[in-house]
Amino acid sequence: MESRNLTMLVDFYELSMANGYFANGLKDTVAYFDMFFRKVPDNGGFAIMAGLRQLVDYLKNLRFTQKDLELFRRKGFNEDFIDYLRDFKFECDVWAVPEGTPIFPGEPIIVVKGPVIQAQLIETMVLLTINHQSLIATKANRLKRVAGDRTIMEFGSRRAQGYDAAIYGARAAYIGGCDATACTIDERDFGVPAVGTMAHAWVQLFGDELEAFRAYARQYPDNCTLLVDTYNVLKSGIPNAIKAFNEEVLPRGFRPKGIRIDSGDITYLSKKARKMLDEAGFHDCKIVASNSLDEFIIRDMILQGAQVDSFGVGERLITAASNPVFGGVYKIVAVEENGVPVPRIKLSENVQKITTPCAKNVYRLFDNKSGKAIADVLTLIDEEFDDSKPYELFDPNYTWKRKTVENYTAKPLLVKIFDKGECCYDCPDIKEIKKYCDEQIENTLWDEVKRFENPHTYYVDLSEKLWAEKNRLLDEYSKKSH
Amino acid sequence: MESRNLTMLVDFYELSMANGYFANGLKDTVAYFDMFFRKVPDNGGFAIMAGLRQLVDYLKNLRFTQKDLELFRRKGFNEDFIDYLRDFKFECDVWAVPEGTPIFPGEPIIVVKGPVIQAQLIETMVLLTINHQSLIATKANRLKRVAGDRTIMEFGSRRAQGYDAAIYGARAAYIGGCDATACTIDERDFGVPAVGTMAHAWVQLFGDELEAFRAYARQYPDNCTLLVDTYNVLKSGIPNAIKAFNEEVLPRGFRPKGIRIDSGDITYLSKKARKMLDEAGFHDCKIVASNSLDEFIIRDMILQGAQVDSFGVGERLITAASNPVFGGVYKIVAVEENGVPVPRIKLSENVQKITTPCAKNVYRLFDNKSGKAIADVLTLIDEEFDDSKPYELFDPNYTWKRKTVENYTAKPLLVKIFDKGECCYDCPDIKEIKKYCDEQIENTLWDEVKRFENPHTYYVDLSEKLWAEKNRLLDEYSKKSH
Repeated sequence: MESRNLTMLVDFYELSMANGYFANGLKDTVAYFDMFFRKVPDNGGFAIMAGLRQLVDYLKNLRFTQKDLELFRRKGFNEDFIDYLRDFKFECDVWAVPEGTPIFPGEPIIVVKGPVIQAQLIETMVLLTINHQSLIATKANRLKRVAGDRTIMEFGSRRAQGYDAAIYGARAAYIGGCDATACTIDERDFGVPAVGTMAHAWVQLFGDELEAFRAYARQYPDNCTLLVDTYNVLKSGIPNAIKAFNEEVLPRGFRPKGIRIDSGDITYLSKKARKMLDEAGFHDCKIVASNSLDEFIIRDMILQGAQVDSFGVGERLITAASNPVFGGVYKIVAVEENGVPVPRIKLSENVQKITTPCAKNVYRLFDNKSGKAIADVLTLIDEEFDDSKPYELFDPNYTWKRKTVENYTAKPLLVKIFDKGECCYDCPDIKEIKKYCDEQIENTLWDEVKRFENPHTYYVDLSEKLWAEKNRLLDEYSKKSH
Repeated sequence: MESRNLTMLVDFYELSMANGYFANGLKDTVAYFDMFFRKVPDNGGFAIMAGLRQLVDYLKNLRFTQKDLELFRRKGFNEDFIDYLRDFKFECDVWAVPEGTPIFPGEPIIVVKGPVIQAQLIETMVLLTINHQSLIATKANRLKRVAGDRTIMEFGSRRAQGYDAAIYGARAAYIGGCDATACTIDERDFGVPAVGTMAHAWVQLFGDELEAFRAYARQYPDNCTLLVDTYNVLKSGIPNAIKAFNEEVLPRGFRPKGIRIDSGDITYLSKKARKMLDEAGFHDCKIVASNSLDEFIIRDMILQGAQVDSFGVGERLITAASNPVFGGVYKIVAVEENGVPVPRIKLSENVQKITTPCAKNVYRLFDNKSGKAIADVLTLIDEEFDDSKPYELFDPNYTWKRKTVENYTAKPLLVKIFDKGECCYDCPDIKEIKKYCDEQIENTLWDEVKRFENPHTYYVDLSEKLWAEKNRLLDEYSKKSH
């Protein structure tokens, strides 16, 4: 992949503020920002972290060009600020939840600490990168969960919202559970397997369907999947496919790979197709379905006995069509004064828009017997977490809801990825990320959290100290503004 | 903008087919492909064409790298096909509807004619480019239509589906009707005005809201818009803003620009804010609203008398959240035999998936008196359209629905943009495109087509000859496959 300089993909207010911080002598004031999200898409029980590798690439490539500086001059920024940007060098510390990890609303998934002018400038790209890929990884996992042992292929490039939506969307979909993609560039750049056989155009070019199938089978006897719905699935497509398999695949010593149905009532057609293929001796010939699928349609198809082995999912995966926004936000939570982080809060009429202040850590508590995740706990950054002792969880909104956990292990969720502007993290290979994601969901999440309808709300709690600090600030600022 | 080589952003089946065409001696067979769409997003009455400039850039940059060829070798393609790709030179003719033009379901908006192996390879990128930008331009225009004289600003980068969704989404939004964007890179690369003032972080960094406002006003007395909802809009934000305007803006000889409200009930708050600002003598101070807005919320706010002058629209515009897919497709419609295009058709159980065959032209008929568009008519490519004679329109599905038009002008919609692989089209400047788009919608579309609910279905009709040809093929292929 060519490395791209995306430094200018920045909301203009970040620059207006940066120029203002600079003029007010605040550029080196150290601030802490948290990225977190408020709601799991599709009312799901968890989301999946993705996009870290691209965030790392962006942070490594931060620099302003001459052309950028000229624009800033036209926009009226101060010359000394422009000089500062000319020599800009990223100096922040960054922590992140590794890709493929299940994540929950309200917890920091990225933490940035550094000169406020810098930490502020990267807001748009931090959010954009993680929001997009986490959205698609989360959606792909829903599809994989309904499909079970059946294959899910990402087929959405043509309906993606721009090139990167196709490229990184296919990457995120693979992390979240897809088995392959149609998007060829993803195999070249990330090692995601690229697959695909024929479009209707192949059949239409030949005009005659049987002739088209024969030609394809001769070309790819070892990997022959035929698209059978150009004219009529049951009356022409499948009979012609069976003829082509018998005439061109078997004699070359191979077995046919599959047929694909891209329109019509696929549940009905797949059952008929299965019967026809079985009667022709092709029990091992797979049936592939595509055509505006999503996790709900696939669930219904399986419930109704559809004989589909592999689903090609397009627009509804690559755009996460049923809920196309992952609403991560990036909020200042503390400002250093004399080397100590002093908390900041944002109030709001919308209670869910109130932020949790303070520089913090996040721990995931795993039950030592079952290995399942019990809760995530946000603490102050300097709090020690001693998991040899019982820990009393409590709901930060309904504090009488309490539960004591014992025999557990507390693991920090955040990993340091940049140290004073230098990358200190090796992004794992995508296959490792995919495997890790699969294991985390399979082994550490209760089924109740994985349910589609009304899933259990996983606990994301605050430590006593953090809770007390948040409430102290809520009181203080509400009084101030009345 | 750096030019990117996106040649490998291709669905793998296009390569499988290309390799197969090559092996079957079909690579130079000339085929015609149409891009068209079936449904206007959000059940609207029309869509807006956008993305052509990026499509031109892509087609100019088509080439395979050594790394690409190595992947093809690993994927098992024939060596002579790989040799062909090494020396690949685009040779197709391409026609397109210019950016900013209102477009309707069922008509070709891009036509590609050329060696089938080439015309097939560009399918994904043609669709991806036009689908994405047309989706966002169409959505932006809905927002602009409800906003009327009020300003609409595109604020969605952080929630966009990838970098290009932010960058090209902001471009398309500007074409469709937005007045500005927060996405700075779009001003540098396309000349879309980039705007933005402050985030909550500015206020939180200072801790004290009034002090934060004073500092901002000192920095930007000539362009001072203050964000007033960090703590409490009416009790603290607006009173503090008024103080800062009086202390820091007026004495410097400027007038305050505005206040922004980003949470709470904006209709209610904006009315109170307007009163407070007016009483303070700031009748000219604008009120800017943001926070999960879309065209329906804005319409309701205006109906309820919200005192908002400018709307910042984020995630619901940049993802077209209510309908995040523009379903353009790319279908083969004819294959040349002995230099003559012979039509191809695709049948389907889903009637709306049946294609309209034949190499064609599209004409838009304008009423000479009102200047309004009456209908679009698809004809065979070699049909003459004589607009000096009355023309009888008829519905291709309900042929008894007929209407004769007189005193009209027929203008071809498609413009040639590539001639035998060479670009022969100058993309207009974005401001020209925006102006053209605005004029087309204002002057040539009836209000009935622009309605949100149940809009009039604009006529997209077939000429007698094209209709007869389509029905001949429908008969022929249905018989073949029974």
